[in-house]
Amino acid sequence: MSLDPKRAVAELKELRALTGDENGAQRVAWTDTWLKAREWFAAKVKSLPVEHHYDAAGNNWVTLRGVSEKSLLIGGHLDSVPNGGWLDGALNVIAGLEVLRRIAAEFGGRPPVTVRLVDWADEEGARFGRSLLGSSAFAGTHSIEADRVRTDRDGVKMEDALRRCGVEIAKFPDAEKEQKNAAAYIELHIEQGPVLERMHLPLAVVLGTKGVERHTITFHGQEAHSGSTPMNARRDALAAAAKLALEIRTIAKKHEDAVCTMGSVKTFPGIVTAVVGRCEVTLDQRDLDASVLAQMYREAQDASQRFASEENCTVEWSRLWNIEPVPFHLQLLDLCEQAVRETSGTSHRMPSGPLHDAAEVSRAGIPTVMMFVQSLKGISHNKIEDTTEEHLEMSVVAFDRLASKTMDWIQK
Amino acid sequence: MSLDPKRAVAELKELRALTGDENGAQRVAWTDTWLKAREWFAAKVKSLPVEHHYDAAGNNWVTLRGVSEKSLLIGGHLDSVPNGGWLDGALNVIAGLEVLRRIAAEFGGRPPVTVRLVDWADEEGARFGRSLLGSSAFAGTHSIEADRVRTDRDGVKMEDALRRCGVEIAKFPDAEKEQKNAAAYIELHIEQGPVLERMHLPLAVVLGTKGVERHTITFHGQEAHSGSTPMNARRDALAAAAKLALEIRTIAKKHEDAVCTMGSVKTFPGIVTAVVGRCEVTLDQRDLDASVLAQMYREAQDASQRFASEENCTVEWSRLWNIEPVPFHLQLLDLCEQAVRETSGTSHRMPSGPLHDAAEVSRAGIPTVMMFVQSLKGISHNKIEDTTEEHLEMSVVAFDRLASKTMDWIQK
Repeated sequence: MSLDPKRAVAELKELRALTGDENGAQRVAWTDTWLKAREWFAAKVKSLPVEHHYDAAGNNWVTLRGVSEKSLLIGGHLDSVPNGGWLDGALNVIAGLEVLRRIAAEFGGRPPVTVRLVDWADEEGARFGRSLLGSSAFAGTHSIEADRVRTDRDGVKMEDALRRCGVEIAKFPDAEKEQKNAAAYIELHIEQGPVLERMHLPLAVVLGTKGVERHTITFHGQEAHSGSTPMNARRDALAAAAKLALEIRTIAKKHEDAVCTMGSVKTFPGIVTAVVGRCEVTLDQRDLDASVLAQMYREAQDASQRFASEENCTVEWSRLWNIEPVPFHLQLLDLCEQAVRETSGTSHRMPSGPLHDAAEVSRAGIPTVMMFVQSLKGISHNKIEDTTEEHLEMSVVAFDRLASKTMDWIQK
Repeated sequence: MSLDPKRAVAELKELRALTGDENGAQRVAWTDTWLKAREWFAAKVKSLPVEHHYDAAGNNWVTLRGVSEKSLLIGGHLDSVPNGGWLDGALNVIAGLEVLRRIAAEFGGRPPVTVRLVDWADEEGARFGRSLLGSSAFAGTHSIEADRVRTDRDGVKMEDALRRCGVEIAKFPDAEKEQKNAAAYIELHIEQGPVLERMHLPLAVVLGTKGVERHTITFHGQEAHSGSTPMNARRDALAAAAKLALEIRTIAKKHEDAVCTMGSVKTFPGIVTAVVGRCEVTLDQRDLDASVLAQMYREAQDASQRFASEENCTVEWSRLWNIEPVPFHLQLLDLCEQAVRETSGTSHRMPSGPLHDAAEVSRAGIPTVMMFVQSLKGISHNKIEDTTEEHLEMSVVAFDRLASKTMDWIQK
């Protein structure tokens, strides 16, 4: 049985029909629709000469034993956000399945190294707000004591939702055992951004996942009557925030690939007849280079102080979350570039702004690389998320080449 | 009985104790606390040689008949916003009461012209969102067909709330009868802004009420992932809005006394991880000069188009409300200036940014003027709203002088 990229596309459509509706994919982790997707997947692997089990964190492992115990890991996630796209996460799992079929066939069920396909549990964190859940358990970077009491919008506790799916949150640390013999990790994903489409490229090598600094910034001025307060007597918290909204773009544009985003602005009292007394904004900054990220964070802080002072306001920062940049493995980057070039004739290297399970695997010290395939219009987490079938098929071919090259590299 | 400014201050405190709580004044129109304030006021006027009645819109008229039927009207409002200040509206009524007592005493109950004190119904519009309700009925500028179906936050219809207080909304037009013989209207009010305190002046002559243009402006860009969307590929609706938030200040500052305010900003989807796809803001522009107001409105529109275009967004405007500027009567301005100067030794002329019942009376063609007394910290509609007792007493003296001068002017 040789590699069949068209079958992968057909299976993606099959999964979409099974687990989506008119609003998009509904494979939210720990729900019945997600379990249905996993059952569908289990049926697919049944005919292969593999072992299949769920680890202590609910990650779904399909193992094709090789001559060597050293293992190539191939990962993705079947879970989606609510009203999500058909490719985000699922492409990785189904392309991986196709690669596994090809390897099993080529080596008569016993390849030179062990190959393991993993469907990570709850990459999106859509229900409980904790993304990369399964892969962080694998990597030993989980935070279960803080996470177990999380609740969904209906008040259901995370702990209880997981138990219903057969996962005991207290046993999460046992998932680290799956690291044993892991020699490399590869992951295919849609870009979820507009870069490759704009460059007219189907595929890219992913340099790593960007570090993130995420903060809430609050400017305090003085609420005042919009009619009776002269312009020069105002302490307008919105004015300070507006200056920062524009300045973060200047800060980001000093660096190729860096991004800074103000995604939310809240005004208080927030009525048409009052000067804004308090303005709360969010800032999300990302770059692959930790020193660039640190510089951007410092520059945004300095700018916010300067603007607060100019507007006779004060400012305070509160960190929401942060993560360091995770650069991928240099030798695997080269292998990925070869695979992309042999398939598409060109290559491009770019960082990933969104996080992926690959970041957690890499943090566990396992050589890791990712491959991107073009997204149409840069849109993801939405039912209109799409990639041309031609590009999907090319991505399966390139990813299969990467798997072969990585198996060779593991044997060296 | 001569003028007793200290009594006016004491009565203001009495009213505060009767109708306020730890959060401020609670005399919201058409509520029990407001009715209690009106009963208290009715008891105060009982000993005066006056007629007392409520008109068809619930305005509260106290008439001291004079030799001539030509009338000097003195107005204010006992209603407040929820958690309001002790002076906004109430000062006018209670200073007017003190002036009425002095006139009744001086002329043995029969002054040369008729003097009428009016407590307008529902100046604030706090409960149903329709301000200047009673004075607009008087002026014939009401909008009852649109207003009668308004509801408060508990779903009570305006029509029903008024009926409970003995007011039939269908009879509103009858309130216009009160215009008969009205020869002049004067109103004292706290400034509700910081101008006089900054100038170290107790009193001012009010030139008129500013015209207002009030709009919602919506910028449409493209929601996008904050991590995967390069800076140069964004259509950031917030960036366009931020530019406008800053530009309206430049637009206003070209003109003395003009103001432009962005009071509310709403971001959609409004999450930390997404570039803002849609941004809704409010704009409130005010000036006493209609041509300046029109120019500012045009400039803001042009700027919004320019910024939308720069950010690859679109923009749409929706008018919330507008009113033309209402300049007060030139000869009454001079009388007011004399009264202020004789009392405080100095004078200052300034427009009012906030609207007042005086604007409606002036629109009815009745010669009108207002006097301002200093506010501390420019704060109003808040329990900390305050004015020094020295300035309150001065305002009663100056307002009494204005009443005398206006009576003389009416007789000429």
